[in-house]
Amino acid sequence: MALDERQQQMCDEREHDFSHLSALLVNCTLKQTPRRSHTAGLMEIPKAIFQEVGVEVEEMRPVDHPIAPGVHPDMTEHGAEVDAWPELVERVLDADILLLGTPIWLGERSSECSRFIERLYAMSGQLNEKGQYLYYGRVGGCVVTGNEDGVKHCAMGVLYALQHLGYTVPPQADAGWIGEVGPGPSYLDDGSGGPENDFTNRNTTFMSWNLLHLARMLKDAGGVPGYGNRRDRWDAGCDMAFPNPEHRS
Amino acid sequence: MALDERQQQMCDEREHDFSHLSALLVNCTLKQTPRRSHTAGLMEIPKAIFQEVGVEVEEMRPVDHPIAPGVHPDMTEHGAEVDAWPELVERVLDADILLLGTPIWLGERSSECSRFIERLYAMSGQLNEKGQYLYYGRVGGCVVTGNEDGVKHCAMGVLYALQHLGYTVPPQADAGWIGEVGPGPSYLDDGSGGPENDFTNRNTTFMSWNLLHLARMLKDAGGVPGYGNRRDRWDAGCDMAFPNPEHRS
Amino acid sequence: MALDERQQQMCDEREHDFSHLSALLVNCTLKQTPRRSHTAGLMEIPKAIFQEVGVEVEEMRPVDHPIAPGVHPDMTEHGAEVDAWPELVERVLDADILLLGTPIWLGERSSECSRFIERLYAMSGQLNEKGQYLYYGRVGGCVVTGNEDGVKHCAMGVLYALQHLGYTVPPQADAGWIGEVGPGPSYLDDGSGGPENDFTNRNTTFMSWNLLHLARMLKDAGGVPGYGNRRDRWDAGCDMAFPNPEHRS
Amino acid sequence: MALDERQQQMCDEREHDFSHLSALLVNCTLKQTPRRSHTAGLMEIPKAIFQEVGVEVEEMRPVDHPIAPGVHPDMTEHGAEVDAWPELVERVLDADILLLGTPIWLGERSSECSRFIERLYAMSGQLNEKGQYLYYGRVGGCVVTGNEDGVKHCAMGVLYALQHLGYTVPPQADAGWIGEVGPGPSYLDDGSGGPENDFTNRNTTFMSWNLLHLARMLKDAGGVPGYGNRRDRWDAGCDMAFPNPEHRS
Repeated sequence: MALDERQQQMCDEREHDFSHLSALLVNCTLKQTPRRSHTAGLMEIPKAIFQEVGVEVEEMRPVDHPIAPGVHPDMTEHGAEVDAWPELVERVLDADILLLGTPIWLGERSSECSRFIERLYAMSGQLNEKGQYLYYGRVGGCVVTGNEDGVKHCAMGVLYALQHLGYTVPPQADAGWIGEVGPGPSYLDDGSGGPENDFTNRNTTFMSWNLLHLARMLKDAGGVPGYGNRRDRWDAGCDMAFPNPEHRS
Repeated sequence: MALDERQQQMCDEREHDFSHLSALLVNCTLKQTPRRSHTAGLMEIPKAIFQEVGVEVEEMRPVDHPIAPGVHPDMTEHGAEVDAWPELVERVLDADILLLGTPIWLGERSSECSRFIERLYAMSGQLNEKGQYLYYGRVGGCVVTGNEDGVKHCAMGVLYALQHLGYTVPPQADAGWIGEVGPGPSYLDDGSGGPENDFTNRNTTFMSWNLLHLARMLKDAGGVPGYGNRRDRWDAGCDMAFPNPEHRS
Repeated sequence: MALDERQQQMCDEREHDFSHLSALLVNCTLKQTPRRSHTAGLMEIPKAIFQEVGVEVEEMRPVDHPIAPGVHPDMTEHGAEVDAWPELVERVLDADILLLGTPIWLGERSSECSRFIERLYAMSGQLNEKGQYLYYGRVGGCVVTGNEDGVKHCAMGVLYALQHLGYTVPPQADAGWIGEVGPGPSYLDDGSGGPENDFTNRNTTFMSWNLLHLARMLKDAGGVPGYGNRRDRWDAGCDMAFPNPEHRS
Repeated sequence: MALDERQQQMCDEREHDFSHLSALLVNCTLKQTPRRSHTAGLMEIPKAIFQEVGVEVEEMRPVDHPIAPGVHPDMTEHGAEVDAWPELVERVLDADILLLGTPIWLGERSSECSRFIERLYAMSGQLNEKGQYLYYGRVGGCVVTGNEDGVKHCAMGVLYALQHLGYTVPPQADAGWIGEVGPGPSYLDDGSGGPENDFTNRNTTFMSWNLLHLARMLKDAGGVPGYGNRRDRWDAGCDMAFPNPEHRS
C-alpha cells in the first residue's frame, strides 16, 4: 500500500478527469532491476496516485538499458556498438508527464540521471509539428532520495534541464527524502522514518497532483500555443508570414 | 528600440489576447537606479514584448529599497528598523508574471537576488484562498547576464526557488547573455555583441511568449485547481471533507 | 563547553605548534548580534579548537556592518553613502585562516554570504607582494547549518569562491549540520540532536585541524611559491625576466 | 606545441624541483579514444607543463573502460559482470596530482565525470596508513570545456568532491574555456579562439603550477599531518592514546 488514508481519499473523491493522460517514471538509480531501490520506494507514491486516477503509467530504470554515452540521437551512427536510446526516447515522447527520480551521491544526482538528461538533450535539434522544441506540451517533475543531504541541489539541476528542453514545471514539482546529516538508514530501511515522514508525503502528493493538473491543462489546450516560440519561424528570419524551412538549423 | 523586426512583428500579428495580465520585472542588480544595469538592458526585451501585447508592466530594483535581511514577512517585528518588504510583496502578489533578473558574480546570482528570494520564502507559511501556497497560479522566469560564465547555474537556483514556492515555470523560461570566457565587455558595452546575439534574442523572446501563454492559461483557469495541493486540508488530516484550519502550521 | 572530551584531548595532547597563526570566523547569519545564531553555535567548535591551540581568533557577522552592495573595493567611491568593507577586508587579510559560516535558505547560502563573497571578489584586481592574487598563502573552509537540506550545495559555492580567489582548501574543509528533511528544530534548539551528532562533530573537528595543518605549512613556506602564478609577470608577456608592471590590469 | 612562449619559458627557467611527483589526467569526455576531445585539447597544457618539469604523467578516459555503476569498491561483488574500477583506482592512488577534465552538457559536468566521482567516493570507507581518508596527501584540480556556459558550476561540484574525499585544492585550481553564449565552435574547432584565449591560458597555467607547488609541499611533508583528522582514532572514542581498530567503520 503506497498510499496512506489521506492520499487514497484524495484519489477516491476527485472530480477531475485525468483520462487519456500518460506518465513515464524514470528511476535513475545505480542498481539494476530487480535490486531494491530506495528511490523506487518513494516513487511508489506518484505511481499509485497516477494509477488510481486513471493515468497510464510506465516505468524505466536507465541502468537496465545500454544507453550509449554521447549527445546524438542515435550513437550507433557515431561509433557505439549498441544504443538503447532511440527506442527509449519513444517512451519519453509518448508520455504527457515525465517524472525523473534520482538518488544522491556526494550531493549530486546520479551519473545515470546525467546520462539520461544528456540523451534528452541530444534530441534538442528536433521540432514538434508546431515548430517548437520536441518536449513542449509535456510536464516534468523530480523525486530525490538520499540518506543525508542534497535533495534541493539535485532538483535544481533536473528541473532546470526539463524546462530548458521544453517541459512545463508545475508548482512544487520536486519532492524528496533524506535523513539527518551523516550516514544512516535509507528510505526503505527499517527505522528510516522515510515512509512516515509527513513533509515528504505531503510534497510528493502535491507534486503528483500538480503534475496531473498541468498535464490536463496542457493536453486540453493542445499543448503550449505555437506562437512566439517556434524555432522554425525564428530561424526563417523576420518574414514571419513565409517561414523558410531551408533556414532551419 | 528594444525589439528587432521579428520580435516586433510577432507582437503586431498576434491573435492571442493577453489583456488583464500583469507582470513584475525584478532586476536584482547591485546598482541603484539610475545607474546603468546590463541586466536591465536585456530585460528591455521582455518588458517591451509584454507592453506591446497589452500586459501591465511594473519594474523594481530591490537594491533601491531597504529590504531587511531575514525570513519573516515583516522584519520590523523582529528588530529591523525599517523593512520595505511588506510593501514590495504586494507588488509581487499583484503580478501574474514574475520575471527575476540577476547579474552573475563569481558564477553565482547576486546577493540582492538571494535576499529577494529569502523574503519571497518568508511568506511560505501563508496560503491563498484555496488553501494553496501563496504564489500558486502565477508564472515565473529569469534573465541572467554576465560577461563570462554562469547563466545556467544562476537560472537553476532561481527557477528552482520559484517553482518550489508555487510558481509555474513555462518551457524555456530562462534566458541570458554572457560573452566569451574571461573579462570582457558587458551586455550594454560597445562591441559586446550582446544586443545582436541571435541565441540570446531568441531565448529571451521565447521565454517572454511562454510566460504569456502559461499566464493566460492559468488566469483563465482561475489558477491551479485546488485539489491535491491544499496545505490546509493536508494539515487537517485524513478527513478531507472537514478540514480543520486550527491545525495549520 | 564547545568541545567534547575527544576534541579537548586532541587539543591538549597535540605536539604541533600553531603559534603566530590567526583565524577569522565570518558568520553570514541573517541575524544581527546578539541574536541567537545556530550557525554561530556550530562555529563554536572550530573557534574553541583554534583558541585552545594558540591561534588568535577574530569573529565577525557581516550583517552587523553596513557593507555596501557592489563589486568595487570601496563603494563610497561609486555612490554608496557608507561602506564598511574597506575596514573589514583588513581583518580578512590579517587572517591566515578564513572560515565562512552560513545558514541555508531554500537550499542556498544566505544573501549575507553572497554579499561577503562579492566583496572579497571586488579585490581581485589587487596583487600581493609576489604578484599573486591577494588571498594567496591563506587557507579557507566553511561551516553550514540548516534544519533541512543543502550543506553540500552551499559548501560547493563557498569553497569554489575561496579557491578561485587564491585560498588553499585543505582536505575535508567543509562541515555542517542539518536535521531530517522538512521543518524541524535548528542546531541550537532543544532536541535537535545537532550538538550530539557524531558525524557533524567529526567533520567539524577534522576541518579545524586540516585548516590548522595547511595554514602552518603555508605560513612556514612563506605562502605559495611565487612562480608560475604571478599575475604581474603573466601580463608582462613572454619576457619573464623583465616583467613590466605597467602592463598590469 | 601545447605551450606558448611564456608557458615554455616558465618551465625552462624554473628553479623548483618537481622530481618524484606523478600526475593523473582523467578526461571525462563522452567520446572514446581516439575520437577528438576538446577537453583533451585544453588538458594538453597542464600535461605539457607537468612533463616539462619532470612529473610523470598518466592519462585516462573513463569512457574507454567498463566502469560499472555503483558505489562499492568492486561492483563485480554486487552483480556487475565486469568492472574496470579496481584496476583504475590504483592509478588514481599512484598519482600525487589528480586533474579531472570534463565537458559541459546543459550546464552540468558529464555523466562520465559523475560516474568517476561516484567510484572515487566508493572507496571512502578505506583509510591510509595514518588512519586518514585514502586520498589525503594528494592535490586535485579541474579543467572544464564547453562551447557556451557552465565552467564555474562544473568546477564547483568537481572541486567540492575532491576536497571532501581528502584532496587538497590549491589556489585557482580550476580552469576552462567556453565561447560566447549559444552554440558555436568548441575549443579545438577552427576559429574558436580557445587556444589563443589569454584568460584561459593564464588560468590553466596558474592551475598547473599551483598543483605542482602544493603537491611538492605535501610530498615533502609526508602528506597532511596525521593529527586531528584520523578516522580510526575518532571512531575509537575519547581514549586517543589507545585507539581500537575494531571500532572502525
